[in-house]
Amino acid sequence: MRNIRLDNVTEVASQTFAGATDERRRQLSQALVRHLHGFAREVGLTHAEWRAAIGFMHRVGEISSEQRSEFTLLSDVLGLSSLVDLLGSPAGATPGSVLGPFHTAGSPWLDNPANLIGHNAGERVLLRGRVLNAQGAPLAAATLDMWQNAANGLYWQMDPAQPSDNLRCRLRVDAQGAFEIATIRPMPYCIPTDGPVWTDLVEPAQRSAWRPAHYHLIVEAPGYRTLVTELFDEEDPYLDTDAVFGVRESLVGRYEDVNDPAGAARLGVPGPMCRVMHMDLVLAAA
Amino acid sequence: MRNIRLDNVTEVASQTFAGATDERRRQLSQALVRHLHGFAREVGLTHAEWRAAIGFMHRVGEISSEQRSEFTLLSDVLGLSSLVDLLGSPAGATPGSVLGPFHTAGSPWLDNPANLIGHNAGERVLLRGRVLNAQGAPLAAATLDMWQNAANGLYWQMDPAQPSDNLRCRLRVDAQGAFEIATIRPMPYCIPTDGPVWTDLVEPAQRSAWRPAHYHLIVEAPGYRTLVTELFDEEDPYLDTDAVFGVRESLVGRYEDVNDPAGAARLGVPGPMCRVMHMDLVLAAA
Repeated sequence: MRNIRLDNVTEVASQTFAGATDERRRQLSQALVRHLHGFAREVGLTHAEWRAAIGFMHRVGEISSEQRSEFTLLSDVLGLSSLVDLLGSPAGATPGSVLGPFHTAGSPWLDNPANLIGHNAGERVLLRGRVLNAQGAPLAAATLDMWQNAANGLYWQMDPAQPSDNLRCRLRVDAQGAFEIATIRPMPYCIPTDGPVWTDLVEPAQRSAWRPAHYHLIVEAPGYRTLVTELFDEEDPYLDTDAVFGVRESLVGRYEDVNDPAGAARLGVPGPMCRVMHMDLVLAAA
Repeated sequence: MRNIRLDNVTEVASQTFAGATDERRRQLSQALVRHLHGFAREVGLTHAEWRAAIGFMHRVGEISSEQRSEFTLLSDVLGLSSLVDLLGSPAGATPGSVLGPFHTAGSPWLDNPANLIGHNAGERVLLRGRVLNAQGAPLAAATLDMWQNAANGLYWQMDPAQPSDNLRCRLRVDAQGAFEIATIRPMPYCIPTDGPVWTDLVEPAQRSAWRPAHYHLIVEAPGYRTLVTELFDEEDPYLDTDAVFGVRESLVGRYEDVNDPAGAARLGVPGPMCRVMHMDLVLAAA
């Protein structure tokens, strides 16, 4: 097109993706063009603002690494991650919640029941539950990838004082779909405030940096949709102002004092009382 | 909000930016949330696609540097840069066109007329013009920042064989608003094909990588809107398929053979004939 004008640039740019051989790719590219252009047109984006945005994206890239995804954080604080999780949450299954920036591949496989307490300070608790299908039948082939922060609020990647892989594991559920993890109670914490997402986007809006305490979980089973979610604590003061929009009512659990000397002994926790959160996780068929 | 659902997440996320003390910042942030969410909702963005997009952004960040902006290229191939340029182009002024990924700060100041030919191969030409206001009056305080590629199609940043700052300069116009630059005719070239923008986005759509030959210009004058634009060549074979949507009819110039022994001598070009492109650049009041 020899004469690109304000009244044709969106259609011309969209049409250049018409030749994509993959139909889904074509759809995503063309919709991205239309919505990006719709944003720029609605606000009358100036060249100075565009340059500032490009500079911002450079800074987001510079601070990102294999251990830290500032791009994920950007998506999280805009509510995009939460929206994607909800779009992928079928009715009748446990709803998805944000992956967060601190999931890294390669978590160690532990036997079930697992004990992550090690030398960690903090309140000792048991996280128990079952992985079920929508009809309530246990999924014995399910696996869990779980990660959480330590008593100082930090994940192991952020904290040189913690051993590698602290407070994370993968495990297989048992024949009844059950899992049991002795761990410490996770803590509320702030999203990273040392990067451009906080400095240039979130802080100027006078938003809170706090996230309510949570366990992260990825639950997989053959023939079922993978569930990426979080479990929250009913007593947490930040449930209503989560900086990344992760809380759903059905993901909020309650710690109960359970008299369970056998469980305590099995997990190597001083007994007989245990603080237990029990949550069943329901997967939708693929 | 304790229960984020599909039907409230966009409004909740948008509302968290309501507290921005800067009104424009509030407007931009809230519109960004709405349009990003609109995109994800329309296409039903899956978690796997979202993860692929985050991985793509990481790769865009990794290949970017002070010398190379893959983020700018991304904006360019989506037509966003061109749209922003057109939004910022008032009627009656020379239209804007894409900055491109190869503008870097610190171009050397040269006297006007300037001679950039040096040891460059290629067809020797003169780029002449005037900087005017919308009423046709010369803007004697205007400055130009001009950059272009060499006969092999490469900018100096991409080509270790070229000296630093090859084929770029800043200069001041004269009292009549006129500028004159002896240079070589720029060449059509391909956008970078060694990065994720090409590999993951443009090439799968079977789009052309070619840009028509052009001069890049930033024109500034006190009290006027800065003009970021490009000048094209009427004989170029790629005017209709520019990979970044930069061509506008009024930016297409024609090289003419001019008998100008004085001009040739002044610029140190073997005369008496010169190949000259003359383009007047009209700035809008700020």
